[in-house]
Amino acid sequence: MKYCSLCGQPVEWKIPEGDTLPRHVCIACRTVHYRNPVIVAGCVPERDGRILLCRRAIEPRSGFWTVPAGFLENGETLEAGAARETLEEAMARVDIGRLFAIANVVHARQVHIMFTARLLDEAYGAGHETLEAAMFDEDRIPWAEIAFPSVIFALRRYFEDRESGAQRLHLTAVERPASG
Amino acid sequence: MKYCSLCGQPVEWKIPEGDTLPRHVCIACRTVHYRNPVIVAGCVPERDGRILLCRRAIEPRSGFWTVPAGFLENGETLEAGAARETLEEAMARVDIGRLFAIANVVHARQVHIMFTARLLDEAYGAGHETLEAAMFDEDRIPWAEIAFPSVIFALRRYFEDRESGAQRLHLTAVERPASG
Repeated sequence: MKYCSLCGQPVEWKIPEGDTLPRHVCIACRTVHYRNPVIVAGCVPERDGRILLCRRAIEPRSGFWTVPAGFLENGETLEAGAARETLEEAMARVDIGRLFAIANVVHARQVHIMFTARLLDEAYGAGHETLEAAMFDEDRIPWAEIAFPSVIFALRRYFEDRESGAQRLHLTAVERPASG
Repeated sequence: MKYCSLCGQPVEWKIPEGDTLPRHVCIACRTVHYRNPVIVAGCVPERDGRILLCRRAIEPRSGFWTVPAGFLENGETLEAGAARETLEEAMARVDIGRLFAIANVVHARQVHIMFTARLLDEAYGAGHETLEAAMFDEDRIPWAEIAFPSVIFALRRYFEDRESGAQRLHLTAVERPASG
């Protein structure tokens, strides 16, 4: 950030009075511009025991697999965001279930929030940001080609809970992946 | 937003190519400026059965009571944010426990994420944004003077879980309060 988004004048990087961290502060209108982590909302869509994954068509991690997930928009709930992303990325309609996993992704300034989900029908496909969408049995999940540690975390916990019948919330902090 | 924060030129409000929602787009450098919901991280600090609340010194809802909570900062986990806010607002040190409540506060473009917490000692006080901090038994909680519906939700579920011994995650969407 170099300019004030309200008045167009330059910003400086300083600790505002009464604050504890440096922020972008406009030299003209004195507006303080905060930057905060963003929420990624997603889900693990299941039907007949199999999981719907998407192969990413965009960076980061283009070509790798993920569950449907993306940035929460203003005006929607977490559940609505997860369902919308599933429609956009995998062209699939879901019933959102239980919030079961949260990953602090500090290096990316993101918090990933994952729900269980039930695919409503057999329809799915590749949305704009997806190379292909496909259904996987648990023993066919391409673990080495999963895009993000938060997705590996969510899928592992998902299968553990499915096996045990547990209804836990799993919370973690994931590190920057070596390859991305 | 009226000006591009990167180049200082005016922005227009339009749907970028390949997108589905209008965004602020710079007329000069074409940067798309996204706005997304922010995370409020907080906790319910308990010691000897009593709960630490803060009476707000700032708007919105100045003069009303809340649990310690505030905007998650870049570079910190949800747990770290909740602990930092408790130190800043109530001058109190906590061990953060279980993530037990999440409230979609769609009208405010916020998601409130609440943890249980254990006060580490008897020390607490009024931080910059607080008029007073005080410990409350469950039957003395000033329900009519709680600042936000998300805090009422969190406190109600907290006491229910404490009574029953349950370890659930409570998820809700709260409406705009009538008075604020």
